[in-house]
Amino acid sequence: MSTTRRAAAIAAMIGAVASKSAAAQTAPAEPKPGITLERWGSFHVGGKEVVVSGQPVREVLFTPGGVPARVDPNGTYLMAGMYAQYMVPSPQRGVAPMLMWHGGGLTGVTWETTPDGREGWQSYFLRRGWVTYVSDAVERGRAGWTMIPEQTGGTPVLLTVDNPYERFRIGDGIGSFQRGTTLPGNQFPTDRESYLNFVKQCVPRFTTTDALTQEAYAALLDRVGPSVVVAHSQAGLFGWRAAQNKPDKVRALVLVEPAAIGDPAKVAALKDVPVLMVYGDFIAQDSRWPTIRANGVRFAEAVRAAGGSVDIIDLPERGIRGNSHMMMMDKTSDTVAGVVQDWLVAKGMWR
Amino acid sequence: MSTTRRAAAIAAMIGAVASKSAAAQTAPAEPKPGITLERWGSFHVGGKEVVVSGQPVREVLFTPGGVPARVDPNGTYLMAGMYAQYMVPSPQRGVAPMLMWHGGGLTGVTWETTPDGREGWQSYFLRRGWVTYVSDAVERGRAGWTMIPEQTGGTPVLLTVDNPYERFRIGDGIGSFQRGTTLPGNQFPTDRESYLNFVKQCVPRFTTTDALTQEAYAALLDRVGPSVVVAHSQAGLFGWRAAQNKPDKVRALVLVEPAAIGDPAKVAALKDVPVLMVYGDFIAQDSRWPTIRANGVRFAEAVRAAGGSVDIIDLPERGIRGNSHMMMMDKTSDTVAGVVQDWLVAKGMWR
Repeated sequence: MSTTRRAAAIAAMIGAVASKSAAAQTAPAEPKPGITLERWGSFHVGGKEVVVSGQPVREVLFTPGGVPARVDPNGTYLMAGMYAQYMVPSPQRGVAPMLMWHGGGLTGVTWETTPDGREGWQSYFLRRGWVTYVSDAVERGRAGWTMIPEQTGGTPVLLTVDNPYERFRIGDGIGSFQRGTTLPGNQFPTDRESYLNFVKQCVPRFTTTDALTQEAYAALLDRVGPSVVVAHSQAGLFGWRAAQNKPDKVRALVLVEPAAIGDPAKVAALKDVPVLMVYGDFIAQDSRWPTIRANGVRFAEAVRAAGGSVDIIDLPERGIRGNSHMMMMDKTSDTVAGVVQDWLVAKGMWR
Repeated sequence: MSTTRRAAAIAAMIGAVASKSAAAQTAPAEPKPGITLERWGSFHVGGKEVVVSGQPVREVLFTPGGVPARVDPNGTYLMAGMYAQYMVPSPQRGVAPMLMWHGGGLTGVTWETTPDGREGWQSYFLRRGWVTYVSDAVERGRAGWTMIPEQTGGTPVLLTVDNPYERFRIGDGIGSFQRGTTLPGNQFPTDRESYLNFVKQCVPRFTTTDALTQEAYAALLDRVGPSVVVAHSQAGLFGWRAAQNKPDKVRALVLVEPAAIGDPAKVAALKDVPVLMVYGDFIAQDSRWPTIRANGVRFAEAVRAAGGSVDIIDLPERGIRGNSHMMMMDKTSDTVAGVVQDWLVAKGMWR
């Protein structure tokens, strides 16, 4: 099918969804009891200044009918900070706060309400007495972004509507979004309305800000103190290295399908940081995940050889089938969260 | 002083702040009691699809040491959606949910913890029994943004670190950030650490997405239902027009220093929507605000002439002095919130 016809077909499908009246997603299917929230709020942390010079001054009309303001683009900017939102329940049962680090091209919304309107992992763990910190990493979401190309590497990547469907082990291969076909037994909520709700939370992603992001996560750990870190996908890189750089600040490390390994030269730094790696379904038949998982397992072996402790859970081996790369959004998200919770309990992280 | 020396002076000041250990901003000065939170979560709403074609396919290495993925930039994107996060307290005392709409170059963080670590307006109203919805408008924060220039008008505006200090009626004129001098009695938390925390929440702003933003706010109102809308600055435009377009969906409209007026041709649509406009201090001596305020007052008179009800409160006339454009962050933010709350009570919006 030609690109134009394919785009038109996708547009028609999206249009059909958009014209449906939205489901009342604020009313959950099974109302759960209220919780006692002691404190809640947010802050920004980390970052650096960047100086721009030699640019012409602009007159900008910010609001039609308003008064133009003089905007001088030269000067000092702050960039590379990170946003974090915390919620403190009563009673508190986690021995340390839980930091939740989203993956690539996403934001802290990853951990919030699932695309189909169920409570997500932030709710799951908050209800069980964890202090939660949900962050937006450098140049994502509420951390803002800077359009100074020299600082962020120019053109970011933004995903087309079909890309996550086909790359995150939801659909069964190329063209599956258009066909509406999934891997057999896939648990991601793939009704069109939910799937589009998920796509809307995807954000552009600069591919050159890893070092800045690592620094910001270090600043976050400095601020919050020793924490349990739950890191998804791209954030696996940041989680491994944050724990290696500041093992005293990471009480336990939970890596949800980490997309990369840590620093092979510093595996001994992890010897007192218990690590859990969780993998979902459909890995063997994917074009990339067997390699990614194998890299992770090999790194885990090196950590163990250096005296560390790494548990690896492949959910299908436990009879938990059908999880995509976005297991915190899959229909079985509570079951998977329970696996993480049980491990944290076993490691003495929750009383 | 040359641009280079000025930039160096600013950098030195920022560096001095950055090297200070961060205050524990999650522990408020005066701990307040916990609340009962019934439900909380988030969603995306609105938006449209955009088709891109004719671009070359890219191989992108998302994570160092990972496996490159093929990213085809051609295809269908979703853009112009909006993010909203809700919190439902128990008991509920507002007769409708309170939607909180941030201003230009900012995000929903506007309403959250103040830059100096105090509870912000979202907390103030949640504690008093309001269901709160804090949103990130189109191409801001967790609403994501699209870097397709044809859709968003090309280069956005990002503020240098001194710009809000001098434009939001905090500092006493050009160069005041560098001098560290404020308007007399100014209430914004201008210690360097707090001020920089505020700057970090500023995000780039496309100046051509107003129509898209208006549509997304309409979709939000359709989803949530009749609401009290609290809109700041640039969002004053959206608030006026949302109420004019869907008066049945706006129970009351609170405009916090609105930067623009509504549609003069549709003032009669507001006859059943009570409106409050709140202005802070230092307006008379500002280069732009006397005009902006006068425009607002004139529009309010037109609304009244058409049968509507608009109350205008100038805080200094009530003995509440020193408020900047960011009155929800000023040290007297609770006092100002109390003015809004009292008005809502008087209008029968809270029981």
